[in-house]
Amino acid sequence: MSDVNKVVLAYSGGLDTSVIVKWLQETYNCEVVTFTADIGQGEEVEPARTKAQTLGVKEIYIEDLREEFARDYVYPMFRANTIYEGEYLLGTSIARPLIAKRLIEIANETGADAISHGATGKGNDQVRFELGAYALKPGVKVIAPWREWDLTSREKLMAYCEQHNIPVDFSSKKKKSPYSMDANLLHISYEGGILEDPWAEAEEDMWRWSVSPEAAPDQPTYVELTFEKGDIVAIDGTAMKAHEVLEYLNKVGGDNGIGRLDIVENRYVGMKSRGCYETPGGTIMLRAHRAIESLTLDREEAHLKDELMPKYAEVIYNGYWWSPERRMLQAAIDETQKNVSGVVRMKLYKGNAIPVGRKSEQSLFDESIATFEDDAGAYDQKDAEGFIKLNALRLRIAAGKGRKQS
Amino acid sequence: MSDVNKVVLAYSGGLDTSVIVKWLQETYNCEVVTFTADIGQGEEVEPARTKAQTLGVKEIYIEDLREEFARDYVYPMFRANTIYEGEYLLGTSIARPLIAKRLIEIANETGADAISHGATGKGNDQVRFELGAYALKPGVKVIAPWREWDLTSREKLMAYCEQHNIPVDFSSKKKKSPYSMDANLLHISYEGGILEDPWAEAEEDMWRWSVSPEAAPDQPTYVELTFEKGDIVAIDGTAMKAHEVLEYLNKVGGDNGIGRLDIVENRYVGMKSRGCYETPGGTIMLRAHRAIESLTLDREEAHLKDELMPKYAEVIYNGYWWSPERRMLQAAIDETQKNVSGVVRMKLYKGNAIPVGRKSEQSLFDESIATFEDDAGAYDQKDAEGFIKLNALRLRIAAGKGRKQS
Amino acid sequence: MSDVNKVVLAYSGGLDTSVIVKWLQETYNCEVVTFTADIGQGEEVEPARTKAQTLGVKEIYIEDLREEFARDYVYPMFRANTIYEGEYLLGTSIARPLIAKRLIEIANETGADAISHGATGKGNDQVRFELGAYALKPGVKVIAPWREWDLTSREKLMAYCEQHNIPVDFSSKKKKSPYSMDANLLHISYEGGILEDPWAEAEEDMWRWSVSPEAAPDQPTYVELTFEKGDIVAIDGTAMKAHEVLEYLNKVGGDNGIGRLDIVENRYVGMKSRGCYETPGGTIMLRAHRAIESLTLDREEAHLKDELMPKYAEVIYNGYWWSPERRMLQAAIDETQKNVSGVVRMKLYKGNAIPVGRKSEQSLFDESIATFEDDAGAYDQKDAEGFIKLNALRLRIAAGKGRKQS
Amino acid sequence: MSDVNKVVLAYSGGLDTSVIVKWLQETYNCEVVTFTADIGQGEEVEPARTKAQTLGVKEIYIEDLREEFARDYVYPMFRANTIYEGEYLLGTSIARPLIAKRLIEIANETGADAISHGATGKGNDQVRFELGAYALKPGVKVIAPWREWDLTSREKLMAYCEQHNIPVDFSSKKKKSPYSMDANLLHISYEGGILEDPWAEAEEDMWRWSVSPEAAPDQPTYVELTFEKGDIVAIDGTAMKAHEVLEYLNKVGGDNGIGRLDIVENRYVGMKSRGCYETPGGTIMLRAHRAIESLTLDREEAHLKDELMPKYAEVIYNGYWWSPERRMLQAAIDETQKNVSGVVRMKLYKGNAIPVGRKSEQSLFDESIATFEDDAGAYDQKDAEGFIKLNALRLRIAAGKGRKQS
Repeated sequence: MSDVNKVVLAYSGGLDTSVIVKWLQETYNCEVVTFTADIGQGEEVEPARTKAQTLGVKEIYIEDLREEFARDYVYPMFRANTIYEGEYLLGTSIARPLIAKRLIEIANETGADAISHGATGKGNDQVRFELGAYALKPGVKVIAPWREWDLTSREKLMAYCEQHNIPVDFSSKKKKSPYSMDANLLHISYEGGILEDPWAEAEEDMWRWSVSPEAAPDQPTYVELTFEKGDIVAIDGTAMKAHEVLEYLNKVGGDNGIGRLDIVENRYVGMKSRGCYETPGGTIMLRAHRAIESLTLDREEAHLKDELMPKYAEVIYNGYWWSPERRMLQAAIDETQKNVSGVVRMKLYKGNAIPVGRKSEQSLFDESIATFEDDAGAYDQKDAEGFIKLNALRLRIAAGKGRKQS
Repeated sequence: MSDVNKVVLAYSGGLDTSVIVKWLQETYNCEVVTFTADIGQGEEVEPARTKAQTLGVKEIYIEDLREEFARDYVYPMFRANTIYEGEYLLGTSIARPLIAKRLIEIANETGADAISHGATGKGNDQVRFELGAYALKPGVKVIAPWREWDLTSREKLMAYCEQHNIPVDFSSKKKKSPYSMDANLLHISYEGGILEDPWAEAEEDMWRWSVSPEAAPDQPTYVELTFEKGDIVAIDGTAMKAHEVLEYLNKVGGDNGIGRLDIVENRYVGMKSRGCYETPGGTIMLRAHRAIESLTLDREEAHLKDELMPKYAEVIYNGYWWSPERRMLQAAIDETQKNVSGVVRMKLYKGNAIPVGRKSEQSLFDESIATFEDDAGAYDQKDAEGFIKLNALRLRIAAGKGRKQS
Repeated sequence: MSDVNKVVLAYSGGLDTSVIVKWLQETYNCEVVTFTADIGQGEEVEPARTKAQTLGVKEIYIEDLREEFARDYVYPMFRANTIYEGEYLLGTSIARPLIAKRLIEIANETGADAISHGATGKGNDQVRFELGAYALKPGVKVIAPWREWDLTSREKLMAYCEQHNIPVDFSSKKKKSPYSMDANLLHISYEGGILEDPWAEAEEDMWRWSVSPEAAPDQPTYVELTFEKGDIVAIDGTAMKAHEVLEYLNKVGGDNGIGRLDIVENRYVGMKSRGCYETPGGTIMLRAHRAIESLTLDREEAHLKDELMPKYAEVIYNGYWWSPERRMLQAAIDETQKNVSGVVRMKLYKGNAIPVGRKSEQSLFDESIATFEDDAGAYDQKDAEGFIKLNALRLRIAAGKGRKQS
Repeated sequence: MSDVNKVVLAYSGGLDTSVIVKWLQETYNCEVVTFTADIGQGEEVEPARTKAQTLGVKEIYIEDLREEFARDYVYPMFRANTIYEGEYLLGTSIARPLIAKRLIEIANETGADAISHGATGKGNDQVRFELGAYALKPGVKVIAPWREWDLTSREKLMAYCEQHNIPVDFSSKKKKSPYSMDANLLHISYEGGILEDPWAEAEEDMWRWSVSPEAAPDQPTYVELTFEKGDIVAIDGTAMKAHEVLEYLNKVGGDNGIGRLDIVENRYVGMKSRGCYETPGGTIMLRAHRAIESLTLDREEAHLKDELMPKYAEVIYNGYWWSPERRMLQAAIDETQKNVSGVVRMKLYKGNAIPVGRKSEQSLFDESIATFEDDAGAYDQKDAEGFIKLNALRLRIAAGKGRKQS
C-alpha cells in the first residue's frame, strides 16, 4: 500500500467522504487532496473547506463548475434527445465525466498519482469515474474505498468516526434521508429504502425539487424557449447561459410538478435497480428540443438521429463519455444541429410540459405544399402514383412469384 | 378506362367517398363494391348500407373489425414500444394495413380487379393502402380518385353532388369541422385549418376524445394492467379482449386528460405536416408496457429493441406492414416478449399517465443483489475492479500512446 | 414543351447522347449545352467537341475531373469501407453526384433552366443524377429522354439518326458490345446480354480491365500503401494524388487479375439486376484500408463504423450523396480517421489482394500486452475474473430465476 | 479451496490440460471429470482416454460432436453472413458455446459443482466458456487455472510435469509449433511467435490446412452448392449433413488455396492481437450464401440483415451465444431464410472462391422487368419520374429555403 504518494479525492464534505479522507491517510499513508465542486446540487460547497482542513488536508480545491457542466456536458447530450431505456434523462451519468476530468487535472497539477471517490462497488458511478480517469491518465491509480474497506454498515462507519474524531455533524442533512440521493443542475435521484420494492409507490415526501402535479398551480405557465444550433440560449426573450437556463427551467418546472420519474433501470454492472428522479428543466428541454427539430431537421437526419440515440445514451450511461465512440457519435449529432434554431412555446401545467407552438427562420415546414387548400401547383399529386408503384415493385414481384405476404 | 370491371371501395358513408362511388361508376363504367368497417372510429357503420344502396351499389360489405384490429395490429405494434419521431403513436398508420387486406380479400371474393380509396395524393394513407394492396395482390389495379379527378375544391364536389343527385346529408358531421380528421380504436387525428400554422396553439374545442388536463378530475384514478407475453389481458383483474382494453383505456384516459399530442411530422411523401392526435389508451399502454418490460426484459434485448424501434416505426408509418422487413422485425420483437408478463399499476391524473408500481413472476429484479443493505455476499464488489480495468484497457492503451481523449 | 430555354446535357459523345442533343433541340426547341467529363473512363473526351459542334451546340464544356472525383468522392467513401450488399464497391454510384453537381453549376453559369441525361427509366442512375440536381437547384427542370421518347429500340434510334443526319460513327466502340457498360476511375461495369441469366457464367472476353486470375503472372507483386488520415497518399514510398493512386492500383490490380465481381443486386427502383464489375484498385484499397484501421482504430469506433456502413452504402447507392444524412454519416466517419495513418504491405497474386503486413506510428497494437510471452505485469489476468463475473451477472440472475437460456 | 467437490474439465489430452488435471486434483483436492470432444480439430480424441486414466480420472467423456457443431452452431451463424470486423469468420468463437453447454450438462450428470478450462486470462476464450457456463448453470464455480496458478512459463510447466510424473509426450505435436493454435471443423487459427509483429508476413510453413495459392492447381474446380432455407444440404447433387459439407469444402477449398486470413483483431478483453486463420469451407460458404440470398431475399430484409450483422458477430465473438440478444437476432435472421433455397455454382481457383452462377425456384429476379430489351410493358418507365420527384421533395424544399446542400 506504499506506492501511493498523493491522492485526489472527490469530496462532498459529507460524512462518507470525510471518513474516506481519514481512511486514505491511514491506509495508504499518503497525502489527500480534496476536490469539491458546485455542479448545481443545491448545497453550499464552501463549508467543505473547513471540514477538509479539520481532517488535515492541505490542498483543497473548491470550484463552481455549473456553467461548464451545463454548457459542455448537458447541452451536447440534449442535442441527441438522449434517453436511456425509454425514460431516464441521464442526470447522474452526465455529471461524472466532468468530475473525472477535474480529478485528473488536479492530480496533474498537484503531482498526485492516484484518485479516489466515494461510489460503491455495486453502482454505475464507480465505472463512470474510473473509465474517465483511466482514459485521461492511463497510469493513474484508482482507489475505491467502498470496494476495499470493511466499513460496510452505518454502525461501522460511526464507530470509525468516533475512533478517529471525525465530527458526525459532517453528515449532511441529505444523509438522514432513507434514500440514497444524488443531485446536480440536471436532476436529483433517489434510490434505496422502500424503493427497493418495485411495486411500492414512492412516498410524496421523498420528492424534493418538485411539487406534486396535484399541488401545482391550477393555471398553466407558458415559456418561450429560443434555440440556436440545438441549444437553448434565451427564455422569454432573455438571453441566458446554459446553467442559468437549467436553473430557470428547474424552478418553473418544479413549481408545475414537472419532471418526476419512477423507473426500474438496468445498470452496467449487470443488475436491475429502482430509481426515482426529478428532472424538471431537462424534461422541458427535451420536449422543446424535439419540437424545434420537428421544424428544422430533415427527415432522414432526424430518423438517423433516432436510430443512433439509444447507442449514444448507452455510451454515456455506461461511463464512456471520454471515448472515441462518443466523439464519433457527437460529430454526427452536432453536424445535424447547424439549423436547429428558432423558438418553441411550451405550456407547463401540473406535470405536463407541452409544446404548443414552434417557429423558425430555418423551418422546413412549407405551408404552400402542406396545405389542405389549393396549393397552386406546388406539389403534383400525380407524382405519388409513380412513387408508390416503384416502392411497391419489390413487393409485387415477390407476391407475383407466390411469396406469402401475410 | 374500360379495363376495370369491378372495384372495391373503402367506403365511409361520408360525402367524399359517396362522390367517389358515383365517379367510379361513371368514369370507369364499372361496378362498385363498398366496404365499410367499424375499427372503433366511433360512428355507426350500418347507415352506410342505405347510402350505398341509394348509389346503386349491389355488393355491400359492412364489418366489425375492432377485435381483429386491436389484437393483430395494435397489440403487436405496442410490443415494440413503437413511436414515430419521438412522439407519434402511429394511430392512423396501423389501421391501414387491415383495411388494405380486407379490400383485397373482398376483391378476391367478388371477382373485382381493382380497389379504390378516398385518400389524397399528398398524404401517407394513399401509400399505406396501395403498398398493402400491391403486396397482397400484385396485379390489382388501384384507383385513387383524388389523384385523378378535377374535383379539387369543395365547390366542385358540391356541384358534382347536385348534378348526380347525391344527397348532401351524406356529409357526415365530421366533415363540417375545419379539420381533416381520422379516427379508430387507437386514436383520432386532426390536420388542416389553423393547424397549418405550427406556431398557432390548437383550439380547445378541436379535441373530441379527451377533456383538457385542466378540466380533468382533481383526484387521480389508478388502474392495474395485467400483461401476458407483452399484451394487456386484464384491467383491475378483469379479463378483457384487446379491443375492450383499448375502449376501456380510451375512456378512462380521455376522462383524465391523457393522450393529447401536437406535433410536426415528416411524411413519407416528403413534406412536413402539423398534426394533433388524441391517443388516451395508447399513451397509457405504452408507458405501462415499458414498465413491465423494465422488470422482465434482459438489458441487452431491451437495448436492442430500442435500437430497432425507430426502424420498425418507420416501416409502419411508411406503409410497409405487409413486407418481409416488418415480419423480420416482428420475429425479433415477439421473441423478446415471452416473459413480459405481470402487473403494472398506473396513476392517471390530469394528463399524466404514471407507472407507480410493477410486479411480475418473471421479474429479473433481484432484491438481494440490488439492495443498499448488506447483500450477504450475493454480489462481490471486488469483481467491479476487474470489470472496470478491462473495459478501460483500450482507452488506457490509446491514452498511453498519446491519443487525445478529450 | 416551350418552357425550356436552355438545357445542359451530360454528353458522352456517343450515339445515344448525340441523338439526345438533336431530340432536345427539336422537341423542346431549346439550346443545348453539352458537358463531357473525363472521370477516368479511359476514352478520349476531346472528340466530343467536334461532334457537339456538328450537332450545332455552341456552349461545350469538356473537363478533366479525375482528381476531384478521386479525392472528393471516392476517397471519402472508402474511409467507410463502403460495400453495398456485401459485395459491390459502388463504382457507378459514386460518380453520379459529381456529374450532377457540374451539370447544375454549368446550368447556373450558362443561364440554363434544365438539365438532361442519357440514363434509362429502369436504372439507378436517373435517380442519382436527378436527386443530385434537385438537391442543388430545386427549381431545375430535368429532362430524361429515355422516359419520354418513343425511340425504344436500336432500330428506331438508327432511323432517327438517318432522318436527322447524325453520323452513325458517333457510336463509340463500346456500344458494339452486347453489354451495357459504364466506366470511371473506380470501375467498369457490365449489364445485359447473357448476364440477364443469373445462372450463366460471364464470358472471359467480356472483361476489359483485368486479365483473368488464370492469365495473371505466376509471381506475386507486392505494393506498400501509405495512408494518412484514412487516405492513400503514397505507393511504395512515392507520393501520389488520389487519382494517380487509383490509376496505379487499377493497372497493377488488373495485371494481377484482381477486382472482378459478378453479382445480383437490388436496384433502388425495386428490381433485381445482374451486374459484373471490375474494380482492381478499389478492391486493393478496401482491404488495405481495413488493415490499417485494424491497427489504428479503437475497437468501439471500428464496430460502430461497421454498423453504420450498410446505411452509408445505401445512401450512396440510392443517390443521396447530396443529402443531410450523408453529411451526418460522413462527419462520424471522418472523425474516426484522424489517426488512420501508416503503411500496409499488400501481396497481389492471381485475383488475391492480401494484406501481409501493417505498421503505424498511431498503432494501438501493444506488443507488451498482447504477447504470449511474459508481459511483465502489463496486464493482470486476474482482472478477467471480475470482468467476466459482472458481464455474466444478468445472465446468471435470469438463469437463477428459471429463464430458459438455450 | 475446499468448496469444490468435483470439476468437469475441457480436456484436450495435451500437455497443458493434463497439467491442469493434476493441478486441480492437488489444489482443490477434488475429483476431476474430463470431457474431450471431436469438433473436427483433426486429431484423434480416443487417446485422451488413456491419458486421463493415467492421471487418475474416473469419469471420462469422449464425444463426437461434429454434426451438432456444424448443424446447430456453424450453420445458424452463416445464415447471417457473419463476419467480425470485416474479415474474421469466427471459427474459434462459434465452437465455445457448444463446449460450454456440454461441460454444464456433464456437470449436471455427474453431480459436479465446478467446471474448468485451459484458456488463458488474456484471451476471448475464457470469456466465452465462462459466460456460457454461467448462463446455463448460474451457481457453477468456474476454475481458470491460467488465471490462478504460477506456472506462467514453459519451464515451470515442465518442472511441474517432472515433479508430478506427467509424461511429457502428452504434449501433442501441435504444441511444438511456435504458434498457439486452435482448430475445429470451421477453421484453424494461429497466434503468437513472429505474428506478434503485425508487419511481419506469416511464414508459408505455418499454414496447415491449405496449400498456398501459388501451389494450388492451375485448373479451376467448380462445385454446385444446394441451399435449403439458408443451409447447404447438397454438393454437386449429393445430399450431405452439415459436418460433411464442411469437411468436403475444407478439403476442396484447402486444395485450391482458399480461406487464408491474416488480421489484427480487437479482443473483448480490450487489446488488439494478430491472428492468422484458415477457413477454406467457411470462405466458400459465405460467398455462396450471399449469392443465393442475392436471388431470393427481398431488398429490405437483405439490407436489415446487413445492418444487424455486425452486432450479431460481436455477440458471438464476445461469447454471448447463450443470451437473449443472440436468440432475438437469430429469430430475425431465421425469419428471412425461409425462401433462401436454390443452387450456387462456385469456381475455386488459387485462393479465389467466385460465385459464377445462381438459380432458385424462389428467385425474385424477374427477367421480364430487369431486361435491357423491350419488357412488353412489365415496367412503366414513367413511374420513375414521380418516384424521383417525391424522393427529392425534402431536398428541394430544403434547398429552396436556402439550406446548403454541399
